[in-house]
Amino acid sequence: MKLYDCSTAPSPRRVRIFLAEKGISVPTIQVDLRNGEQFGETFRAINPDGTVPVLVLDDGARIADIVGICRYFEETQPMPPLMGIDAADKAVVESWQRWCERECFYAVMDAFRNSTPGLKGRALPGPDPYEQIPALAERSRTRITRFLERLNERLAANQFVAGERFTIADITALVSIDFAGWAKVKPAENLGHLKRWHQAVSARPSAKA
Amino acid sequence: MKLYDCSTAPSPRRVRIFLAEKGISVPTIQVDLRNGEQFGETFRAINPDGTVPVLVLDDGARIADIVGICRYFEETQPMPPLMGIDAADKAVVESWQRWCERECFYAVMDAFRNSTPGLKGRALPGPDPYEQIPALAERSRTRITRFLERLNERLAANQFVAGERFTIADITALVSIDFAGWAKVKPAENLGHLKRWHQAVSARPSAKA
Repeated sequence: MKLYDCSTAPSPRRVRIFLAEKGISVPTIQVDLRNGEQFGETFRAINPDGTVPVLVLDDGARIADIVGICRYFEETQPMPPLMGIDAADKAVVESWQRWCERECFYAVMDAFRNSTPGLKGRALPGPDPYEQIPALAERSRTRITRFLERLNERLAANQFVAGERFTIADITALVSIDFAGWAKVKPAENLGHLKRWHQAVSARPSAKA
Repeated sequence: MKLYDCSTAPSPRRVRIFLAEKGISVPTIQVDLRNGEQFGETFRAINPDGTVPVLVLDDGARIADIVGICRYFEETQPMPPLMGIDAADKAVVESWQRWCERECFYAVMDAFRNSTPGLKGRALPGPDPYEQIPALAERSRTRITRFLERLNERLAANQFVAGERFTIADITALVSIDFAGWAKVKPAENLGHLKRWHQAVSARPSAKA
């Protein structure tokens, strides 16, 4: 088994934190995203989409999706559970994870990719060229700000994003919020519940992964 | 248990097909999206986001996310499996489902919501106002076309989206492609594998759900 990773990138960081919380160690291969290694022939043979993370299983099967990779490890090593403990809890955790991803992670990606000079013509991940849309970057910043306010409200009554346990939803929220700094959006100082939560999850050893 | 639904909308259709494939019947309450019932006080008390589907469990717990709801039923009634059969298969199915959702369902939503005159100021689902971005509608159409070509390649070697079994990935792809008609994008006639697959999945009784 091996994990194609890039130690500076937000997407594989979601998997790295997940693995660290489970105490799982997987041999990794670093892909140099800054210098375009993901679009070279060697890596495109692993993943034609040119994205990391990618998990390659011992039988050669490839899982080129963040949450798909997390699912594999949740199934093979259920403890500690990061994706819910029974039917209702699994559904609730998945809903919050998806909310954080849709409203924050994807919004940050849109804000960053549609405004960063070095990403002209690469406004979406993958090999296809897409021009930047400045209005989308701007709208995404508004959306992230709104997400942070709503997450703060949520955390007023809950220790963690999905309730009383640390889950994959916290990982998605943490990585998204740290990634938002790349798009020059930071949580407002008055979001006290969010601040309390962000300090707590950032202090976990897994956050360094 | 009850399911808040809208019989004409693509998002709850994903859940309806999933339930039909499982042979599960849930009491439903129709929400009149066309006349804005989702933003009225009564429904906002159920789901502040003003979106359907929402599943309310007997203990009052609410699951307001398409895949979260599917996960609940996959866990409570595993047969027939629609989200994978073992760790690796679950990871693969999830990856393909997420690919179809990200590259097609969300792209169709962006194409439709950013170009439809009746949705001015409502370019994203939910209660917050967002102006339409015509360039995003246009870029999303290109993205959908590219997705259809890639799905056609995938289906050249696979009976279904995630491999040899019908799964939630087929449901997401089917609903997304039918929804794409709303954004005036149809699969090109020369995409023969896609056509074969679309006819087959559309002929399943669940497709009428």
